[in-house]
Amino acid sequence: MTNKPLILVTNDDGYDAPGLQYLINLMRSIGDVVAVVSEQSQSAMGHAITMKVPLVYREAVAEDGYKMYITNGTPADCIKLGLHKILDRHPDIVVSGINHGSNSSINIIYSGTMAAVLEAAMGGIPAVGFSLQDYSHNADFSKTDDYILKIVREILKNGLPEGTGLNVNFPKLNGSPYKGLKICRQSKAYWKEDFSERYDPRNNKPYFWLTGTSHILEDSRDTDEWALANYYVSAVPVKFDFTAHDAIDRLSNIKWI
Amino acid sequence: MTNKPLILVTNDDGYDAPGLQYLINLMRSIGDVVAVVSEQSQSAMGHAITMKVPLVYREAVAEDGYKMYITNGTPADCIKLGLHKILDRHPDIVVSGINHGSNSSINIIYSGTMAAVLEAAMGGIPAVGFSLQDYSHNADFSKTDDYILKIVREILKNGLPEGTGLNVNFPKLNGSPYKGLKICRQSKAYWKEDFSERYDPRNNKPYFWLTGTSHILEDSRDTDEWALANYYVSAVPVKFDFTAHDAIDRLSNIKWI
Repeated sequence: MTNKPLILVTNDDGYDAPGLQYLINLMRSIGDVVAVVSEQSQSAMGHAITMKVPLVYREAVAEDGYKMYITNGTPADCIKLGLHKILDRHPDIVVSGINHGSNSSINIIYSGTMAAVLEAAMGGIPAVGFSLQDYSHNADFSKTDDYILKIVREILKNGLPEGTGLNVNFPKLNGSPYKGLKICRQSKAYWKEDFSERYDPRNNKPYFWLTGTSHILEDSRDTDEWALANYYVSAVPVKFDFTAHDAIDRLSNIKWI
Repeated sequence: MTNKPLILVTNDDGYDAPGLQYLINLMRSIGDVVAVVSEQSQSAMGHAITMKVPLVYREAVAEDGYKMYITNGTPADCIKLGLHKILDRHPDIVVSGINHGSNSSINIIYSGTMAAVLEAAMGGIPAVGFSLQDYSHNADFSKTDDYILKIVREILKNGLPEGTGLNVNFPKLNGSPYKGLKICRQSKAYWKEDFSERYDPRNNKPYFWLTGTSHILEDSRDTDEWALANYYVSAVPVKFDFTAHDAIDRLSNIKWI
């Protein structure tokens, strides 16, 4: 390979998703690209890793400045394989997506796309995930180019704070262009679950498809959901720390035992 | 059922794990127990939810004050099913574990046990996960009773801060009793990955088992790893917010586009 930046690309919609191909093409205009991606869609796999079966991978593309490896693993596995098995040096950046569907607000916890970003950030690699609020296979990614290229170039030039990744979401447009990029915090929200009940034709036993609707619990202007609802591109800096720091003092004052 | 507290129990080691049975027996001394658990071990499934196949469940135990439902879902699915399908009222607490193995530090991101706790906390239910730093099937859980009973009773009495769960880890003892309980923050750490390479006897193609060693990056006395290394029981308040709040100002000052 060359002296160009080395860019590790992954996603969670599988190797044949249009959003992945779109991102790879953009990244090839910036650097050398190695994609390590899942054979199958890994949506909603969260930060799962593969422990019960071994991992395998194969080289699927080997062009000048662009290789693709297809694995049986999750997005988090793809990053582990990329960093510790496939690449012979650290990539300059990890880029994940473009996801078909939103990873804003609490959706990030279920997201394989963002698990890859967090996995890379924990390993000290600057990382960014891109998602478009449009679940369709034929979503129009063409308006995202300027933002994606500028964000990736900025990160390649100046990095990100240590251990921090970036969760970038694009709203579905409605005629007008994006209004700009907003650095935000993750909105508070919850999913109101519903289970669609069906019956197995063989034995008439019930089975359930998990469905639900997202409810946003705040409309503060510093949140990603506000930005998206107002046609801004949202960018939430993310890191892996589940500690509820604001609860430590209160809980420390309890006599537990 | 009675006026006793309603306790929803789950785990990620599967319905037949000794740690689950141990926890159920403890909880039955406090309230009415409904266990919703996975058929198979769900270790390292993180916050995965089941989208590609439908969920099914069956009633496996129906005793006075104790029911168990076995599902094909992940721990996060078990909570969704429990809260929104199986139970006819909100439980007073969600209790997850006892996990065979540690969920301290960054291990929480891969943990199904703690995914269940976060899923419940996001839904506004007080929730606590218990893990023992001993992966063996026959681990000795008997020293944990006092702590588990007192923690659960305290939470039933006074709740937890909104949206917050508790990640409780027990160190493996070395003759002496636990020194007490410490409210901590999650330690910074990383896994140094390794891939154990083998060859398929049919076609001699390589396959890889994900292995690795955990490296703790700090020994500050306010961290869970310090507490565990010094034979304290660690309790980290956790909530679901990936925002790197400390990075927002710096990133807001960049001219991205």
